Amino acid sequence: MPLRRQEKNAVSDLLRKGRLKSARKDVILFTSSAKDDKRILKQIVDINKAHIVMLIENGIISKNDGGKILQALAGLEKKVKLRPEHEDAHVAIEEEVIKAAGEEIGGNLNLAKSRNDQVATAIRMKLRQEILEIAESIINLQEALLRKAEENIETVIPGYTHLQPAQPITFAHYLLAQFDALQRDLERLQEAYSRVNLCPMGAGALASTSFPIKRERVADLLGFSGVLENSLDAVSTRDFLLEALAILSIMAVDVTRIAEDLIVWSTMEFGIVELPDELAFTSSIMPQKKNPDVLEVIRARMAQLIGDFVASATLLKALPTGYNLDFQEATPKLWSAAETAQRCLKMLSEVLLNVKVHSPLKFRSELSFLAATELANMLVREHNVPFRTAHSIIGAVVKHLLEEGKSLRDLKPEMLADVSRKLSRSPLVIDEEDLMRIVDLSRCVESYTVRGCPSKKEAKRMLRERWNLLTNSRRWIREKEDKLKSAEKTLNKEAAALVGKPSRKP
Amino acid sequence: MPLRRQEKNAVSDLLRKGRLKSARKDVILFTSSAKDDKRILKQIVDINKAHIVMLIENGIISKNDGGKILQALAGLEKKVKLRPEHEDAHVAIEEEVIKAAGEEIGGNLNLAKSRNDQVATAIRMKLRQEILEIAESIINLQEALLRKAEENIETVIPGYTHLQPAQPITFAHYLLAQFDALQRDLERLQEAYSRVNLCPMGAGALASTSFPIKRERVADLLGFSGVLENSLDAVSTRDFLLEALAILSIMAVDVTRIAEDLIVWSTMEFGIVELPDELAFTSSIMPQKKNPDVLEVIRARMAQLIGDFVASATLLKALPTGYNLDFQEATPKLWSAAETAQRCLKMLSEVLLNVKVHSPLKFRSELSFLAATELANMLVREHNVPFRTAHSIIGAVVKHLLEEGKSLRDLKPEMLADVSRKLSRSPLVIDEEDLMRIVDLSRCVESYTVRGCPSKKEAKRMLRERWNLLTNSRRWIREKEDKLKSAEKTLNKEAAALVGKPSRKP
Amino acid sequence: MPLRRQEKNAVSDLLRKGRLKSARKDVILFTSSAKDDKRILKQIVDINKAHIVMLIENGIISKNDGGKILQALAGLEKKVKLRPEHEDAHVAIEEEVIKAAGEEIGGNLNLAKSRNDQVATAIRMKLRQEILEIAESIINLQEALLRKAEENIETVIPGYTHLQPAQPITFAHYLLAQFDALQRDLERLQEAYSRVNLCPMGAGALASTSFPIKRERVADLLGFSGVLENSLDAVSTRDFLLEALAILSIMAVDVTRIAEDLIVWSTMEFGIVELPDELAFTSSIMPQKKNPDVLEVIRARMAQLIGDFVASATLLKALPTGYNLDFQEATPKLWSAAETAQRCLKMLSEVLLNVKVHSPLKFRSELSFLAATELANMLVREHNVPFRTAHSIIGAVVKHLLEEGKSLRDLKPEMLADVSRKLSRSPLVIDEEDLMRIVDLSRCVESYTVRGCPSKKEAKRMLRERWNLLTNSRRWIREKEDKLKSAEKTLNKEAAALVGKPSRKP
Amino acid sequence: MPLRRQEKNAVSDLLRKGRLKSARKDVILFTSSAKDDKRILKQIVDINKAHIVMLIENGIISKNDGGKILQALAGLEKKVKLRPEHEDAHVAIEEEVIKAAGEEIGGNLNLAKSRNDQVATAIRMKLRQEILEIAESIINLQEALLRKAEENIETVIPGYTHLQPAQPITFAHYLLAQFDALQRDLERLQEAYSRVNLCPMGAGALASTSFPIKRERVADLLGFSGVLENSLDAVSTRDFLLEALAILSIMAVDVTRIAEDLIVWSTMEFGIVELPDELAFTSSIMPQKKNPDVLEVIRARMAQLIGDFVASATLLKALPTGYNLDFQEATPKLWSAAETAQRCLKMLSEVLLNVKVHSPLKFRSELSFLAATELANMLVREHNVPFRTAHSIIGAVVKHLLEEGKSLRDLKPEMLADVSRKLSRSPLVIDEEDLMRIVDLSRCVESYTVRGCPSKKEAKRMLRERWNLLTNSRRWIREKEDKLKSAEKTLNKEAAALVGKPSRKP
Repeated sequence: MPLRRQEKNAVSDLLRKGRLKSARKDVILFTSSAKDDKRILKQIVDINKAHIVMLIENGIISKNDGGKILQALAGLEKKVKLRPEHEDAHVAIEEEVIKAAGEEIGGNLNLAKSRNDQVATAIRMKLRQEILEIAESIINLQEALLRKAEENIETVIPGYTHLQPAQPITFAHYLLAQFDALQRDLERLQEAYSRVNLCPMGAGALASTSFPIKRERVADLLGFSGVLENSLDAVSTRDFLLEALAILSIMAVDVTRIAEDLIVWSTMEFGIVELPDELAFTSSIMPQKKNPDVLEVIRARMAQLIGDFVASATLLKALPTGYNLDFQEATPKLWSAAETAQRCLKMLSEVLLNVKVHSPLKFRSELSFLAATELANMLVREHNVPFRTAHSIIGAVVKHLLEEGKSLRDLKPEMLADVSRKLSRSPLVIDEEDLMRIVDLSRCVESYTVRGCPSKKEAKRMLRERWNLLTNSRRWIREKEDKLKSAEKTLNKEAAALVGKPSRKP
Repeated sequence: MPLRRQEKNAVSDLLRKGRLKSARKDVILFTSSAKDDKRILKQIVDINKAHIVMLIENGIISKNDGGKILQALAGLEKKVKLRPEHEDAHVAIEEEVIKAAGEEIGGNLNLAKSRNDQVATAIRMKLRQEILEIAESIINLQEALLRKAEENIETVIPGYTHLQPAQPITFAHYLLAQFDALQRDLERLQEAYSRVNLCPMGAGALASTSFPIKRERVADLLGFSGVLENSLDAVSTRDFLLEALAILSIMAVDVTRIAEDLIVWSTMEFGIVELPDELAFTSSIMPQKKNPDVLEVIRARMAQLIGDFVASATLLKALPTGYNLDFQEATPKLWSAAETAQRCLKMLSEVLLNVKVHSPLKFRSELSFLAATELANMLVREHNVPFRTAHSIIGAVVKHLLEEGKSLRDLKPEMLADVSRKLSRSPLVIDEEDLMRIVDLSRCVESYTVRGCPSKKEAKRMLRERWNLLTNSRRWIREKEDKLKSAEKTLNKEAAALVGKPSRKP
Repeated sequence: MPLRRQEKNAVSDLLRKGRLKSARKDVILFTSSAKDDKRILKQIVDINKAHIVMLIENGIISKNDGGKILQALAGLEKKVKLRPEHEDAHVAIEEEVIKAAGEEIGGNLNLAKSRNDQVATAIRMKLRQEILEIAESIINLQEALLRKAEENIETVIPGYTHLQPAQPITFAHYLLAQFDALQRDLERLQEAYSRVNLCPMGAGALASTSFPIKRERVADLLGFSGVLENSLDAVSTRDFLLEALAILSIMAVDVTRIAEDLIVWSTMEFGIVELPDELAFTSSIMPQKKNPDVLEVIRARMAQLIGDFVASATLLKALPTGYNLDFQEATPKLWSAAETAQRCLKMLSEVLLNVKVHSPLKFRSELSFLAATELANMLVREHNVPFRTAHSIIGAVVKHLLEEGKSLRDLKPEMLADVSRKLSRSPLVIDEEDLMRIVDLSRCVESYTVRGCPSKKEAKRMLRERWNLLTNSRRWIREKEDKLKSAEKTLNKEAAALVGKPSRKP
Repeated sequence: MPLRRQEKNAVSDLLRKGRLKSARKDVILFTSSAKDDKRILKQIVDINKAHIVMLIENGIISKNDGGKILQALAGLEKKVKLRPEHEDAHVAIEEEVIKAAGEEIGGNLNLAKSRNDQVATAIRMKLRQEILEIAESIINLQEALLRKAEENIETVIPGYTHLQPAQPITFAHYLLAQFDALQRDLERLQEAYSRVNLCPMGAGALASTSFPIKRERVADLLGFSGVLENSLDAVSTRDFLLEALAILSIMAVDVTRIAEDLIVWSTMEFGIVELPDELAFTSSIMPQKKNPDVLEVIRARMAQLIGDFVASATLLKALPTGYNLDFQEATPKLWSAAETAQRCLKMLSEVLLNVKVHSPLKFRSELSFLAATELANMLVREHNVPFRTAHSIIGAVVKHLLEEGKSLRDLKPEMLADVSRKLSRSPLVIDEEDLMRIVDLSRCVESYTVRGCPSKKEAKRMLRERWNLLTNSRRWIREKEDKLKSAEKTLNKEAAALVGKPSRKP
């Protein structure tokens, strides 16, 4: 008993017929999500398929009708044209199915479901994919860090605090620190995945339905690890979206830090790293310039991730429980943040793999002050000076040297004796050889023996363990991807089996 | 060989002697973290104890010296006075220890460690406590939700989408949805806990140290589950702080939603809930007012959590790797966010336990339209009408009734027949009794049978499972607390054993 | 003496030749601003024209050469194709000019200027236009408010505080309040305009140039009110961008408030306004729904403006002085915010012009409590009761009535006497007629006589003044537009005059 | 006819009596604004005074009663104790006045006004003061910039773009750029002042009042420039608060930039500025360190201003029109932001006045590349080479020199001839003397002649004009302060005249 068609061009009135007069076109253009729905079109079609398969299996619609709907749905994600006059993809798809299967049959496409559970499901399906891809980008960046670290286990560079040279470390140690920070970003994404990968389908508009549907079956056909149980919660929450953006915002801080370090270190003044020509830019007016444009763009785009989080949190805050159309406007933020994250992670990997590293310690004598802490430690260890006293003595030594325009390499036993006499009861008598031994920054680095320190031995051990971590991370991705692919295969098989096989006794 | 004291009032020059002239007092007052360090004073003292115990155990300082330092540290968190002229708590404590044990011995308090690893450790120790307390507050709120839900399994209320009445649900179903959202907030906190509960000690300023310290031992004495390995990462990262604030920001959206719902529902117009007098306020001028001040304050304070996240992310973004004093300014945001979160969660629990619930369905006939979807479903189920057609027919029925100022309770078989004749080929003939059955909103709710639906049976099942969840959550907290208490006991025992027992052969 | 062409496809190497090897294509695609530069292409071409005119006038290049460049520039904004492989529009344009005029002549296009001053100038030119358009959208919305207000001078509605009915006002009064808030947004934009409308040209890369250029002339030809003086400031600051986004963020709060009010007021429960069918939407599943989608979308998009501000502030914060490529990434936020603002303001105007207003006071007796304050005032005025006492008495009266399920319309002299006897020394004896007079909410509104009050008289006066304000605002826009158009005309005339007229004596 | 006191401890029930039972103490402690109201206590007392003066003048209360209330109000801001059990300051003050003057008289304190108009007025009064103080702090910082600039008109430093040395400027030029940015911040504050300085009093709760009050008179007595007209707007808007925070957020970006520049420039590597010992800090472990703690703290605290804006915007967004208690929670953000801003501006002034400036150009030969643009310009000017060609040639020269580890100072005519031969048709023949002239960076700076350029002459002119600007800015503050002081004097005089002078004929 199909609806009588009163107008030919009834498209966007699909849902309004009876209840409301036609919407103004400018209003539909304003509220339409058609443009953004392109990203989740395939997901919506798959959800429709799974839903129909389940309806047939549970006798809610007949095999005959269901099969025709499934036939109409087959490959629809490629055929359907989303126009700005469409309220959204759901309407466009229903319209296509009705066109193909007739309203008598196609009019049941949305039986026992709603746009509310459907769109939440589609976003989760797309987001789990995006999470896997961002995870892959992180892992690739981590691999770049490990590869570069392997080449630089002995490249001594200044470690900075307050952007002032502090103590000598290696470039490998620096890169391993970044690896570990990214590993935590990855962990957060993995944990978020398990919260994203739950299926809202069956929640309907908010109260589920009186039809005897099977939510677990739909969840399974769509590759979810389970259902999002409470029907009101299932359609009302966008916390998973905020969580993803929050994780990207934290990652943005980590990634920006690397970009910032490299920008500062590639200045003419620091000279620790150098971008290869192919990754650098010059000026339209100043011919000497070699600018780290690519790193600046990464740094800037990371700010957008934080902006996307704020926009979404502000948007969601103070909304009442239940579906609100505001939700629709948060989704594009998610996709653009995911894309920005992936592009920037990829480009940063390229930069890291190609950047040239220079140890500035050789040609910049003032960096010998990096050994000051170890000098103080030596006084404690070998001359029984309390640490705070040793710290003061070496502080005074540094001051003295700086005032004379000298560096720690110029420290002589007499000066140390002089200074220590002024600051403590008796002068310290140290061999020049001992002084020189401490001031050798490479030996300095190797004198560290603590777990997690920058020495060659620890670097090698840490590298080994992190290569293993990397393998595990890649395996995690593969497992998730396999599960999704296998679910998709099953869904298509089940749908195909039901198409064109009219049940004899409906 | 202690430093010669040149001035009596050398306090804030403890670290500067030798290297720098005295700092200006206004500058110290400006940069000092003394005020905020009060919150982590106990943690800093404990860290010093654990560090000294480890130094003694590994022969880095003698039992005699170490014992005297431990004696000076005993109960120091209560004795030390943090003044605004102190750079920070670390300096104040070292000063006290030197005063008590003399510089010859006390001057080694900071041997093989730095303020950088120490403060990161102290914040993590405090934060893990705060996480447990916030978790407890969430669980208490969840318990309030469950208790209130048990009383309201049959209280039918309108479920809303777009703030328009959508379908009937129960107040219990609403509360269970909020429970589930909070459960995810709790999960995130639990996962964050495992990232917070790692010990930076031993990282020193950034490059560890050349003394043969044992990082695992210190971590263990302080109740951590392990060390934060890479020494540069250990002192440079504040991602754990951002993660905590991000989780609170997401939770803020969930909590605000409850407050918003209750504010709207307690309006004279909605009349679904009513605050008891003791939790409501009136106006200074309008005597009839009963205002939900307490909910508005909760809603507003939740915005502060988001502001704290943004302030911290903006602060940290674009900092170079390594310790920067900027970090110091992010920490107070963490504490104030934690306190705000706990206070608001607690107050919201009180509101929920005490709010009166009214089902507005009885006296507001227009809410009978909530049954419209089920009417359409009935046409599908019992009269073989395609869903989209049924949707249009009922839409037209609703329009008709509204235009006549009537509600769905006034629907008669003839009107349905009339309308359906206009919209489809043949009129629908439905018994008045059937219509009345569907329009009964309580029966409507009970007609849902799907997993996660608002029916009484599902509500009871979901309540049962959530009470179990609650027990597990409480157990998780107890286990973490026990581990921390036991570590503290061990630390104090070990420290006590070393105090006052001079080693005979140093 | 042009550069020898070694390769045909030298496009993107225009600036690199000599200094750097070719950039990798993926790197250029990553950093390119070509896509976003489309929005400022016309501005960049105009800047080039003005610059060349000035160079000719000051004898820095010959009329002959300059004329040929101007010829190449004519209409170039329509001809040039911005491809993703272009670093930016500046390069694309220089390339086109060199192609048309040869390198010997075209190679001087960027003499005495830089991309840094040029892009800052172009953004300011585009932004001043956007400001005028946003201003126009605000004014149109204000006009809609005034028009709707004129129809509703006597439509009494509840005024709310804490979302609880407080005192009676009129719908006109409500709309006038929104007008005034928007007027302040408009003022801020007008003030920002004067800071935006200053010309950076001549600042070069940051240090101006050694060529004797005339900055005032270029500024004038481009319609600016003056130059942005300090050359370093001129290219380094993006505060004007932040200011525009900040103003839009504040406006977002004002606009959201209107949307929020209308969403709440269009609920079945409040019933104060009703969206016409053409502006409302229904549900895919619940046929009774009439959802305010368009208002929800406005509310949500306003959050994006705040997100854009945060993204930009976070991006800019902690950048060093001088041009940084990060700037490039903030610009698109500006354009998207401007577009969002305009579209939403326009749609909100449509909603306001078409919304139906119902005074719910007639059929909802409980709203009679809105008169409570005036009842208390009457006791003060006519019965000499201190205000606080009157407030308490009426408070008790309200409580009493509510407990009996009654409204203020049911208040009888006896009840008032009873209650007042309990709360004060003597009972209050008031005529029933007096009570009824006060409880008449329309008379209540007309009893206000204060400046800025909701009475009809004041509404008319305020409307009159605001229509005048509106006229002034429109005049302001016209004046600015005229100045810009006139400058453009002059520029094109001067440029045309110089094209193809080779100076006899170069 | 005062209220009968039933309980002694009726304090916090002042407003509830009759209408609501007592509030729970934990609820009052939670919602109370007493702690924050301390900041606006004086303002609230003054508002009460002005209101009572106006009520007497217009015969709304008798001189006798009014005089007694004024007597009770005199100096009350010092006497009243705000306790956490007070809902807010308004209640505490009314309570005190009733205690002093009795309820019969004191009970009229809040006649014809409300907490809603009163608190909005008080915040505006406090904020206009804060704006003047922040403005003063900005001006002081600007003065420090000018003073330092005067000393550094000839101190040539590298100007940077992309943090790479670009062209030579002077330290004075840098400082003048910062002056101009701050001048725009100041302008914004001045413009905001005029929007803040409008008086909401008389708006009542939202609908004004039926008493014949005079709003202009109260506004005048409180030093406002006018009334905030629409009564609903007057109590509902907090845009002035957002505007102030937005301006501070923009200023935060400007201030952070200075801090960031100085942090980078004070590194051992850049060596352009040096903090004096009194403003620097060292490490607890690394004795060589001289850390810019004070600048890092400034940089970090600027992020809080942005966080305060976001918290407030998020809080206000989506609130309905009318007073909501959420407003109360935004106010403390305003005060803390104002304080943070002032303290940081002050400290930054100290840093700038005391920082030592070194021109690194003398001892770092690679900085000679700063002259590259001028070399290219010279080829254009003196050798008729098109600019783009000249740019390429010098680019190749730079590359050549860098590969040989040389600087621009090592450029010889032969090398230039060689390189130019390869890139263009004929070799360029330039005198060594000409080359040396260009490479002299001080002469380079003096070769700029454009308005706003870094040359000595322009610097002097710009300094002169900015000293004048500074004088004007200071005059603006004085004028505003004088107006406020004079209003306060009048208010106190009028109030005093009415105290204790019972009118004979009431």
